[in-house]
Amino acid sequence: MKKFEEKTIKSESIYEGKIIDLKIDEVKLPNGKTSKRELIDHPGAVGVIPVTDDGKVVMVEQYRKALEKSIIEIPAGKLEPGEQPEVTAERELEEETGYKADSLDFVVSYYTSPGFANEIIHIYEARGLTKVEDALEGDDDEFVELMEVTIDEAIDLIKEQRIHDAKTIHAIYYLMLQKG
Amino acid sequence: MKKFEEKTIKSESIYEGKIIDLKIDEVKLPNGKTSKRELIDHPGAVGVIPVTDDGKVVMVEQYRKALEKSIIEIPAGKLEPGEQPEVTAERELEEETGYKADSLDFVVSYYTSPGFANEIIHIYEARGLTKVEDALEGDDDEFVELMEVTIDEAIDLIKEQRIHDAKTIHAIYYLMLQKG
Repeated sequence: MKKFEEKTIKSESIYEGKIIDLKIDEVKLPNGKTSKRELIDHPGAVGVIPVTDDGKVVMVEQYRKALEKSIIEIPAGKLEPGEQPEVTAERELEEETGYKADSLDFVVSYYTSPGFANEIIHIYEARGLTKVEDALEGDDDEFVELMEVTIDEAIDLIKEQRIHDAKTIHAIYYLMLQKG
Repeated sequence: MKKFEEKTIKSESIYEGKIIDLKIDEVKLPNGKTSKRELIDHPGAVGVIPVTDDGKVVMVEQYRKALEKSIIEIPAGKLEPGEQPEVTAERELEEETGYKADSLDFVVSYYTSPGFANEIIHIYEARGLTKVEDALEGDDDEFVELMEVTIDEAIDLIKEQRIHDAKTIHAIYYLMLQKG
């Protein structure tokens, strides 16, 4: 859908980084006026909801520099160029948790921050988890601590703001709906 | 929690904009090595889940330049400096939908993209909606089309990817859980 389309008059690249790029677009609005849009280009990401046979969710605690605190999240990671999201999901699951999944089912995709970023995250549900010997190792600047929590524990972690991001709260709601 | 804290060695401001700032921090990792973090500073936002007396959700369709398409979202907007989120929520509800709410209840707050941005969104549920005469007008570069949808219609819109962002999908899951 292109309703209220904003046509680009001029686009200025401000920064091209390792993960994100920033550009400023001057746009023509539906009323003929112009405005500026600050836009972040992001390669996209996956999030995995790994559920153990006894119904616990596998999560990782990690430091998030943007927030200056550690939070507990479902495993996630960026798409490599040209990589299919399922492949990223399998890789990130193994790297961050040491698990492989018998089944990896697509749940939903969503934009995280459509007001300024094109980051899309593809969510998968992983079941039939088994520990991998000699699992893939993550990036050498990533430090995560693994934990397995029940849905009730996750709800408490949301109240305590130790689970505090969109994809992980979404994942818990999803599992609650699934349980009925 | 400061587990795996990354201490800032150097911080370089790349861009200071109308909505977002970009900086690059050089950090010291828990293993003593250094790395760089690309970080977006955002003022924070609110999202409102407005539910009519007959159980429909009030949404707005708007063009999102970052996505180069129009999507259907719950009403939302940025915090002004020093503004309490409840005040932003009331204002954005009136500006974008023309409604005032008898009750505005806090649901949850979450970070949208903790890997690179500190944007937090505070979600409120608005009930007891009445149309305001001479409602506040929105920003002059915002064009939105109002609609009211049932939860079943919203689920279809998610499948069609016309609802396609984290906060709106979260809102629909929230209402489904509330219905039981």
